Amino acid sequence: SPCNRAIKVSMSQNQSYWTCVTQKIEDQLKQLIPVRPPLLVYEPMHHLVFTARRTMAPALCVATCELVGGQQPISPNQALVVASALHLVQAALFTHEQLPLTDRPIPSNPETLTHHHAFAAGVELLTGDGILSFVYELLGRSDDPAGGNSERLLRVIIEIARAMGSEGMVDGQYRKMLCSVLGSEELCDVGWVDHVCEKKEGRLYACGAACGAILGGGSEEEIEKLRNYGLYVGKIHGLMLYYHNNRTGGEEKGFTDLVERCTSLALKELEGFNQGMVQTLSSLVRASFWDKC
Amino acid sequence: SPCNRAIKVSMSQNQSYWTCVTQKIEDQLKQLIPVRPPLLVYEPMHHLVFTARRTMAPALCVATCELVGGQQPISPNQALVVASALHLVQAALFTHEQLPLTDRPIPSNPETLTHHHAFAAGVELLTGDGILSFVYELLGRSDDPAGGNSERLLRVIIEIARAMGSEGMVDGQYRKMLCSVLGSEELCDVGWVDHVCEKKEGRLYACGAACGAILGGGSEEEIEKLRNYGLYVGKIHGLMLYYHNNRTGGEEKGFTDLVERCTSLALKELEGFNQGMVQTLSSLVRASFWDKC
Repeated sequence: SPCNRAIKVSMSQNQSYWTCVTQKIEDQLKQLIPVRPPLLVYEPMHHLVFTARRTMAPALCVATCELVGGQQPISPNQALVVASALHLVQAALFTHEQLPLTDRPIPSNPETLTHHHAFAAGVELLTGDGILSFVYELLGRSDDPAGGNSERLLRVIIEIARAMGSEGMVDGQYRKMLCSVLGSEELCDVGWVDHVCEKKEGRLYACGAACGAILGGGSEEEIEKLRNYGLYVGKIHGLMLYYHNNRTGGEEKGFTDLVERCTSLALKELEGFNQGMVQTLSSLVRASFWDKC
Repeated sequence: SPCNRAIKVSMSQNQSYWTCVTQKIEDQLKQLIPVRPPLLVYEPMHHLVFTARRTMAPALCVATCELVGGQQPISPNQALVVASALHLVQAALFTHEQLPLTDRPIPSNPETLTHHHAFAAGVELLTGDGILSFVYELLGRSDDPAGGNSERLLRVIIEIARAMGSEGMVDGQYRKMLCSVLGSEELCDVGWVDHVCEKKEGRLYACGAACGAILGGGSEEEIEKLRNYGLYVGKIHGLMLYYHNNRTGGEEKGFTDLVERCTSLALKELEGFNQGMVQTLSSLVRASFWDKC
């Protein structure tokens, strides 16, 4: 395909690598979540999956799979399925985060304020649950019929469930909610934003990077280094997003310092890996990358 | 243990068999969901798991595992873990079903009307998501470290995800919600209740019965027969519950006919299985069982 060719011809054109991978994941998602009968179920699902905020966690999963040498015929496809699952988890939790609950305070987050609800709250709630169950059905089904890959797949399921759960993204959403309830400025300082971003975007990206490395057959050391890399990239992404949505002049220095610290910690984790791919991966933490997003 | 002894000594005391299995599942759940720090997370989780309505789907999972001969040292424990997972799924969806959403109509269901919310809606929403992610983490982790059981476990994961998803319990909740929105009497007739019960309780019980048979190493034919048995038992349970909550004199005949039809279809599926255990299993569809619940 032209997409594959582009990757091979010029690995140094990092932006085009990410564009290609992102496009492949979109195609996979379109195939997985068609608009089909019953429309009452699949129309909201399709809408919520494709309007949810995109992250680079799915693409990171495909990239780390390639990095550790996932050249087996099965891995790239499976990495695309797992990458899609990562977006679906993010879409389901994002949908639940925007739900209008009777005792939820008026949101201080502009993202929530401007969020357009295409469906009734009850439909969006259930569609989120439907998407979550589809994630695990999808992962379970993605096992190679010839067998032999089940252990890796079970490990990926555990990784995704943990990243999503009460010590991961759900914890991040919980703390974000607490802050909007309490609304206290001392509480919602840089340290708090740091924590929320680590749990939300950080854990999602860390999970993506680790899952790719697991599927690609990476060593335990490679998996842990790439998990850490993902954690820092996700934190940076989360911090940029938060800063973009809540520009508060006074805090700027704190944010810049935090992003710089995460960037150098992230790059350290890539030492020792194959250089061509490292250049592509490390482009994710370069400022120029964010400008284009 | 005295519980095991009781099962062996008098299998004919069916009620005591179910009491024993149910107690074992409660013990397993208490071990899995302790009240531990951080209390902000685990207190709501514990509360919602243990106040959610109990069903017989988890006990059915343990029973069908035994029925097909799951005598391997690993299966009974794994069946208890999967049984616990089934209750957790039910608890998470039950929690989401009771959430106060801004545009949810005033519930016509007395169960919802009288539902006491111990926590803020945002906390209950996120705790539901946290429980769901814990389910899949738990299932993934329950793999035998010695290996060899991964395929069965992946199959159980698919079964649970499908039973919960947009063509299972979530669909049932959706149709239940539609009816309370539209509130039309023609819509919410016996046929509609039949459909909702099939999707909610039916699919949950069918899943429990099938998962037990899969874990116990049953044949495909045994798995399908027990899945069907579970579907009918679940429907009966759902119908009894609905009838108990919404006594409407006029519909009584329709309900009785439906329950009787399900009962005879259920018992037909048990033909050909080991007689001692069949007696225990079939006690689930006897009227005397419901009287004691």
